[in-house]
Amino acid sequence: MSESPAQLSALEAARRIADGRLTSEELVQACLQRIRQVEPAVQAWQFLDEEHALGQARAADERRRSGEPVGALNGIPVGIKDIIDTADMPTENGTVLHKGRTPRKDAAVVASLRAAGAVILGKTVTTECAYFTPGKTRNPHNPEHTPGGSSSGSAAAVAAQMVPLALGSQTAGSVIRPGAFCGDYAFKPTHGLIPRTGVLQLSRTLDHIGLFARSIDDLALLAEELTGYDDGDPDTRPLARIPFSSLSNEEPPIPPTIAFIKTPHWERVDADAKEAYGELLEALGDRIEEVELFPSASEAWDWQRTIMEAEMAANLEPLWLAGRERLSERLRSLMERGRETRAIDYQRVLRRVPAVVESFDELFMERYDAILTPPALGTAPKGLGATGDPVFCVLWTLLGMPAVTLPLMQGANGLPLGVQLVGRRNFDARLLRTARWLERKVAA
Amino acid sequence: MSESPAQLSALEAARRIADGRLTSEELVQACLQRIRQVEPAVQAWQFLDEEHALGQARAADERRRSGEPVGALNGIPVGIKDIIDTADMPTENGTVLHKGRTPRKDAAVVASLRAAGAVILGKTVTTECAYFTPGKTRNPHNPEHTPGGSSSGSAAAVAAQMVPLALGSQTAGSVIRPGAFCGDYAFKPTHGLIPRTGVLQLSRTLDHIGLFARSIDDLALLAEELTGYDDGDPDTRPLARIPFSSLSNEEPPIPPTIAFIKTPHWERVDADAKEAYGELLEALGDRIEEVELFPSASEAWDWQRTIMEAEMAANLEPLWLAGRERLSERLRSLMERGRETRAIDYQRVLRRVPAVVESFDELFMERYDAILTPPALGTAPKGLGATGDPVFCVLWTLLGMPAVTLPLMQGANGLPLGVQLVGRRNFDARLLRTARWLERKVAA
Repeated sequence: MSESPAQLSALEAARRIADGRLTSEELVQACLQRIRQVEPAVQAWQFLDEEHALGQARAADERRRSGEPVGALNGIPVGIKDIIDTADMPTENGTVLHKGRTPRKDAAVVASLRAAGAVILGKTVTTECAYFTPGKTRNPHNPEHTPGGSSSGSAAAVAAQMVPLALGSQTAGSVIRPGAFCGDYAFKPTHGLIPRTGVLQLSRTLDHIGLFARSIDDLALLAEELTGYDDGDPDTRPLARIPFSSLSNEEPPIPPTIAFIKTPHWERVDADAKEAYGELLEALGDRIEEVELFPSASEAWDWQRTIMEAEMAANLEPLWLAGRERLSERLRSLMERGRETRAIDYQRVLRRVPAVVESFDELFMERYDAILTPPALGTAPKGLGATGDPVFCVLWTLLGMPAVTLPLMQGANGLPLGVQLVGRRNFDARLLRTARWLERKVAA
Repeated sequence: MSESPAQLSALEAARRIADGRLTSEELVQACLQRIRQVEPAVQAWQFLDEEHALGQARAADERRRSGEPVGALNGIPVGIKDIIDTADMPTENGTVLHKGRTPRKDAAVVASLRAAGAVILGKTVTTECAYFTPGKTRNPHNPEHTPGGSSSGSAAAVAAQMVPLALGSQTAGSVIRPGAFCGDYAFKPTHGLIPRTGVLQLSRTLDHIGLFARSIDDLALLAEELTGYDDGDPDTRPLARIPFSSLSNEEPPIPPTIAFIKTPHWERVDADAKEAYGELLEALGDRIEEVELFPSASEAWDWQRTIMEAEMAANLEPLWLAGRERLSERLRSLMERGRETRAIDYQRVLRRVPAVVESFDELFMERYDAILTPPALGTAPKGLGATGDPVFCVLWTLLGMPAVTLPLMQGANGLPLGVQLVGRRNFDARLLRTARWLERKVAA
């Protein structure tokens, strides 16, 4: 069977569309065909209107034919997690309480994608309110295993070649973990780099937009369109466009030095994963050094829980009032804890965060280009009743540090085993540059 | 007796010093003489080292003589509330728990004053931790009356002509209220306009730096040196220097229209003050219209209390731990309430604030140049055991709107009765322009 355009990288597809060697309609048709084929097993989509997607594709082709300047993603289909508002599709936030909810405005990231010419292919499955109760999605590598969550559909759709790019969100470990479980390249940029306006807010402190793709090139291509200031998100700042593609393609001036951080949770990592990381360390030789997590950071998991509980209880209060009995027991008990949190405890942990960020800044300034650590306890766990443990993402989410997972290894069960690289805050393009170096080093 | 330089406005004194008609040493000597004369009755100063002040004055005179460029406040003495850090004087925050505390760094505003050439004359009395328990200061117009608080010493020192300028802070009503009680011109700019780095933090949401002077000219002169970005205060933003003096001296293009807002607390205003405001309204004729406070704002007093209690409990926790038994009962019981506040209630009120700010923005855009409202329930109350009620300041503090009080009237007891004007957020110079118009209109 000949290659389907659905297998192309976004970068290659965008080039062919720009050159006239491929139309967006052909690409979207190929994606839809792939979806028809694998969706019954994978269940990645919450909403998909084929005609509406094809209409956008034809409009992109028309723009190209007209000769007017087009965006970097002209004609490229993107999947959107169903907690991210779309003006032309429902956004149900993974809860029956928002069944049929139809936002009037696009989220800032969706508006940016449309401005770049992208086709908003459809809405991908999220767990309930992007927390832990799973949706219908299965792991494309083995349908008896979880795809991870909460960005389950986006992670699975990209891995299953239904769409080259997708957006998700991370408040604990909802991008890096499903990305790793599904064998994607997934990227959670620095907190505040991508505006969250129009996205279901769980926690201003912790929420991040995340990206799914099948290569670093494609993560860079997508990231370049999404960063920037938006006055609906008070954590964004005016900044110049970051040329992710060119910066991440630069050769590091000297070979990177990487810090391997086990964290206090290493003991819980699966035996086969421990072995695989051990081999990776060996392969990297003197380019990697084990670094002990400083004591001030070891309480950070408790802080993240306090913040997540308190902020989710406040942000999701309308759902609590509208029908808490229709929320899952898991979400309800989180909110019960959050409703009891004292303001003084909440504020106390919030103000301990900056000092830990500073300690990591020093670590990077002194010696290291990136931190290498597992994205999860191992490969995607068996069973669909849970989405796996976010414990290896929580610290970097709390600190707002950029993180990327790369599908460089396999577990004993043949499922993808990711490698997480974490960078210094606001040095996101450099993190992708280091990720490229690592990928080449491992392939060599 | 001939005029003492201590009676001069800061603007006039700065001109004479620049021209060589007055030296800073003469000015500071005159202020010290005035202090020796009235301080026994007023008790405005927490710390004052005459020799250190004169040394700064001589340095300012030396700078002028050397011909090097000097700042706009070269040689002008300024009083500093004793919750604002000074590297060369103690900063005791009004509590025995900080007795003898000597900061290593100047607060950002003190550094700005020094850069402008000012003489940091001394530290002025604050209530305990800038909350409600009074210090030793008395009202210069009548020592049996409170000067108001918490910026008691700064308000009294300026009114008593001990110093032409002083700095204070406001979290509920701690600048506008004592300014009005002492017959000062006092100004609390928009939240975030003046950095609070190095100032005892009670509440990031509510804390503001405030200014005391004896004219609008002098408020403008001082404000111009203090605004700007400081990376120690996350609520400041990079912005161009605001030319307060020239902007506030412009003629309004058309005569201002002012909204008179009674607020839900008008009933509690003293009878003689009600009468005086009635006469003022009559004098302003069709330039003023009574406007009903919109219902969404009427709960704001409760919100301010929730935020102040929760944030003060968290920020002052080190004092609580170090010796809560040495705090006043009043402060301790505030902190006890704050320690019980739920994070969800705290967050809920925080997020209701922006919509009210927006409603006021609309009010200004539609029709009004400023809001006129009392700064307090009347003139300074008799007695030194309390500092008066901040109820007429609380709303504008919560909303971060700029406010100024002008000593335009007198109460039945002969004490000064202020008029508060409140402006649109970030239109501070325009508020001073309207204040000048009002002052001229009343004098006419």
